[in-house]
Amino acid sequence: MEVSGTRCSPGILPLVVVVLSPDTKEETVAWLLRRIREKQQAGGAELLVNRLHSEVVDKEKENPNIFLVAASCQRLLSGAEDLGLFKEFSDGSMRSFTCINSHNFKEFHVRRLQSKRILIQMFPLHDREELKRLSFKWYKKVKTSLQPLDDIRHYYGESLALYFGFLEYFTMALVPLALMGLLYCQFDWENYDKYVFFAAFNLIWCTVIFELWKRCSASLAYHWGTLSRKKVFEEPRPGFHGILGFNPVTGREEPLYPNFTRQLRIYLVSLPFVLLCLYISLYVMMIYFQMEGWALMLHEREPTFWTKILLFIPGVIYAVVIEVMNLIYRYAAEFLTEWENHRLESSYQNHLVLKVLVFNFLNCFASLFYIAFIMQDLVLLRQNLATLLITSQIINQFMEAFLPYWLQRGRNKMMINEVSLNVQVRLESDMNTYLGTFDDYLELFLLFGYVSLFSSVYPLAAVFVVLNNITEIYSDAFKMCNLFKRPFSDPAANIGIWQLAFEAMSVIAIVTNCTLIGMSPQARAYFPDSEIHLMLWTVAIEHGFLAFKFILAFLVPDVPKHIQIKLARLEFESMEALKKKKMFDIPVKSWL
Amino acid sequence: MEVSGTRCSPGILPLVVVVLSPDTKEETVAWLLRRIREKQQAGGAELLVNRLHSEVVDKEKENPNIFLVAASCQRLLSGAEDLGLFKEFSDGSMRSFTCINSHNFKEFHVRRLQSKRILIQMFPLHDREELKRLSFKWYKKVKTSLQPLDDIRHYYGESLALYFGFLEYFTMALVPLALMGLLYCQFDWENYDKYVFFAAFNLIWCTVIFELWKRCSASLAYHWGTLSRKKVFEEPRPGFHGILGFNPVTGREEPLYPNFTRQLRIYLVSLPFVLLCLYISLYVMMIYFQMEGWALMLHEREPTFWTKILLFIPGVIYAVVIEVMNLIYRYAAEFLTEWENHRLESSYQNHLVLKVLVFNFLNCFASLFYIAFIMQDLVLLRQNLATLLITSQIINQFMEAFLPYWLQRGRNKMMINEVSLNVQVRLESDMNTYLGTFDDYLELFLLFGYVSLFSSVYPLAAVFVVLNNITEIYSDAFKMCNLFKRPFSDPAANIGIWQLAFEAMSVIAIVTNCTLIGMSPQARAYFPDSEIHLMLWTVAIEHGFLAFKFILAFLVPDVPKHIQIKLARLEFESMEALKKKKMFDIPVKSWL
Repeated sequence: MEVSGTRCSPGILPLVVVVLSPDTKEETVAWLLRRIREKQQAGGAELLVNRLHSEVVDKEKENPNIFLVAASCQRLLSGAEDLGLFKEFSDGSMRSFTCINSHNFKEFHVRRLQSKRILIQMFPLHDREELKRLSFKWYKKVKTSLQPLDDIRHYYGESLALYFGFLEYFTMALVPLALMGLLYCQFDWENYDKYVFFAAFNLIWCTVIFELWKRCSASLAYHWGTLSRKKVFEEPRPGFHGILGFNPVTGREEPLYPNFTRQLRIYLVSLPFVLLCLYISLYVMMIYFQMEGWALMLHEREPTFWTKILLFIPGVIYAVVIEVMNLIYRYAAEFLTEWENHRLESSYQNHLVLKVLVFNFLNCFASLFYIAFIMQDLVLLRQNLATLLITSQIINQFMEAFLPYWLQRGRNKMMINEVSLNVQVRLESDMNTYLGTFDDYLELFLLFGYVSLFSSVYPLAAVFVVLNNITEIYSDAFKMCNLFKRPFSDPAANIGIWQLAFEAMSVIAIVTNCTLIGMSPQARAYFPDSEIHLMLWTVAIEHGFLAFKFILAFLVPDVPKHIQIKLARLEFESMEALKKKKMFDIPVKSWL
Repeated sequence: MEVSGTRCSPGILPLVVVVLSPDTKEETVAWLLRRIREKQQAGGAELLVNRLHSEVVDKEKENPNIFLVAASCQRLLSGAEDLGLFKEFSDGSMRSFTCINSHNFKEFHVRRLQSKRILIQMFPLHDREELKRLSFKWYKKVKTSLQPLDDIRHYYGESLALYFGFLEYFTMALVPLALMGLLYCQFDWENYDKYVFFAAFNLIWCTVIFELWKRCSASLAYHWGTLSRKKVFEEPRPGFHGILGFNPVTGREEPLYPNFTRQLRIYLVSLPFVLLCLYISLYVMMIYFQMEGWALMLHEREPTFWTKILLFIPGVIYAVVIEVMNLIYRYAAEFLTEWENHRLESSYQNHLVLKVLVFNFLNCFASLFYIAFIMQDLVLLRQNLATLLITSQIINQFMEAFLPYWLQRGRNKMMINEVSLNVQVRLESDMNTYLGTFDDYLELFLLFGYVSLFSSVYPLAAVFVVLNNITEIYSDAFKMCNLFKRPFSDPAANIGIWQLAFEAMSVIAIVTNCTLIGMSPQARAYFPDSEIHLMLWTVAIEHGFLAFKFILAFLVPDVPKHIQIKLARLEFESMEALKKKKMFDIPVKSWL
């Protein structure tokens, strides 16, 4: 076991800061402390907890209810065992558990206090020594090597490490496309014939990279011990409410909420709301096209330098409006999904992801679809794609990195100096909370859409996305180390629903690209007499690509062979051990 | 535990008949018997075994090396436990193991003798009392209720019971289509407009029934205790050979065969062979069309009654040739897959199924595709579909039921009377061996193809398939009870790769039916001016269907909710028990 804390007695490290509302009753506080300290057999968490002594007496607004929770080594080990973690054994196989992630105490039962506004926040403390080492390895030195994924996982947990792993993999995978895009850019812009090859390569490539990512992800998860981790029984999420009853699985008393009512809320409120938002988004799009038309009209009437700039204005405004609408919709979707009152965090996440994805997809890409397939203007399509992509990248980088950095700047300076535990707790409790990988994946998803959906008209898109991703790695790393509270680590075996989302996007990309190619003048030139034959060929090729995709997904095993063998060996050994145990157990039983 | 045997001492039932080659050396026999009798700890099977006493002295050709293997109750229980079987507990949940399937001793280690031609055959004995009861319930009485699936499973094991369950489900699911087909038949044959609705209904229906079958299958498997059964580690299949080495998973010494050589055999021999067969199949098809052309020419030159009959002759001949080619190819595919030397039975099965499916699909349906999409002659298509379907049904029923029944007839009579164990063993060892459910599923798969692929031109197909399936249930039941040796029961949780095959067929059916509809005169009438618009709509609708299919597959959970809850409860309780066990274990450890 690795003990990295230095400011506490040996074997005991401060884990989590719990901040209660300043006006919490003393009884509640006492009850909570008892719950935390009590033995596990008695239903407690068997942890150590202490109130943070207030050093700064003059500040009247200082919250007295800040607690430090810690755990003994023994408790950490048993906690890791409960989570079903695996650890690499000396011979390279994964056997026992690890307790590297000692920050997994989010599960402990005080969770419900959060929904009653007593618990204001709860977060693990940063380990300043380790963080310094990590940030140096990660983004401070100029380097040619990859990100220190094992260190990231060690400090932030598997879920976040998988995100950074995916970001890195995705960037690397796009490099060949970007290089080809640059080559195309060197040659003739309007040489559509070559674009067809680019698009075909792109489609196969997009299919292949996500198949390979599954295997990479399985390798990472195997080495981190989460691949064959058994799912712990999921407790209700904080905020879930209902009439008290008995859970059919555990037999425990907990709130129950009728599925029927939830379905009603989903289909009678959420669904119409989403449809309304989609309609508004399309309406805004039509306004944009009108503005575009006016600008073009003005430019054509008397073309000056200013009208030429005016041509770009509607595109930029529309890109900004799209981002703003995405942001507002995001909050609405969160509110609605919360209101749907899902019992499990996973079900909540799935409904939220579905809502947000559908809207963002339409909001970002509807205008491109309209230009491509209704207006059939490929030059305008390329121009729009470039405007949307570049504008949204600039907005994202600004919102994500510079703005929080600028806001946090003053406080950051204090972090550099050596400070007491007391001050560190106060400082970190003022930092922003990292809300999970959702927005980061969403951004990558939309960028992937820009690259893949219309790749046959704009090969340069991959170049911009690669550039964006490289800065994204650095800005995300900086953000995680400097701007946010340390998040609870979250054991994960894969990137979950996002794998499906990216694969769905690559299916849609097959349809759009084949259609674009079918519409191209070069393709038409092959069938000068019969449009029917052209269409038949287009549809046949598209079906070929789709079949290729599904056969590939079926043929490529999701877990690499050598890991399959290791997992099988583990399974086999545990079965053999069980058999032996039974053989020895039987005589003992017959004695009794 | 259910003990159903009556001819052996209490608690001990004769399980399996082992027939060795008559010229086996006595040392080999002695070694084998020792292996069977020895304790499990010593590496034996811990079973009882006796040589069958030869009563009929006058027959010189009588094989002396017939052995009866039996097991004690205790051994059966531990065997069932090893297999990881579950049993329904008093409160309706599945908990412990069952040993209803006491015939699972195929796994025991003498398997390799089979590949060395020492072991001639090995089969479980029929239980004549139980068989009589089962056959009465199953097919002897005229009944309105369903098949006694639980009894079938009890006697033959899960794999076969799932086949009969699927056959029944498939038949039931086709009844609505058959009724609609009959209705269409009552009205105008050439009213294509209504066929469009029929085809649309058919497509949705085909998608839905296989989703629902997954849930039915999960329900059945849950009640039989195989749903959450852990896969036992797969031993190499008999016939697998290679250089002795160490298995990376078990560490045991066993033959190893390089994967590279196998891949070479697959891609350099099997694949070209399959392609050659496909070519031959297409060549035969072209000959058929020539014959068809000649017959038509003759008929048109001077139409008589005989030339009218002559018109049907090529179709019937072609149908017979198809069946013969399927049969020959089947043997070739088995030989090739055997030669590819797969280590696991499952891998062998997958390669065999893939080879056979691709060929049978092309062989049976190529002419229909040719007529539908190259010749675009829908009247001829309907006529051909009817000829092929009906001829292949007649051939199948003849080959499957009447022929073996007729061949076995004399021997069957002897089965009716009460006979000694000795005579029963000799009789049953002469019966045919049931080769598994492969051919039965394959037949259903092809029938499903006839129903679904061109449903928009021939709604009556469903009627014929339903009629065929009803006789199939009876003839299969009769066959299983009277013509075959009792097969080893095979625990199965689902119908395996066939689920995938049927779903793939329904995807292909979407493509073909949408194309047929797009080609119909009625559809053309909607777009009199522009064929392009017609095609766009056709493709759009087809994509809609495909998307519907995949979204449905994603949305419908494979396991019904109430079984999910039961499984979750089981998992939860075992985890809780483990936790408690650990809590009590720790003090013990600290004492040591």
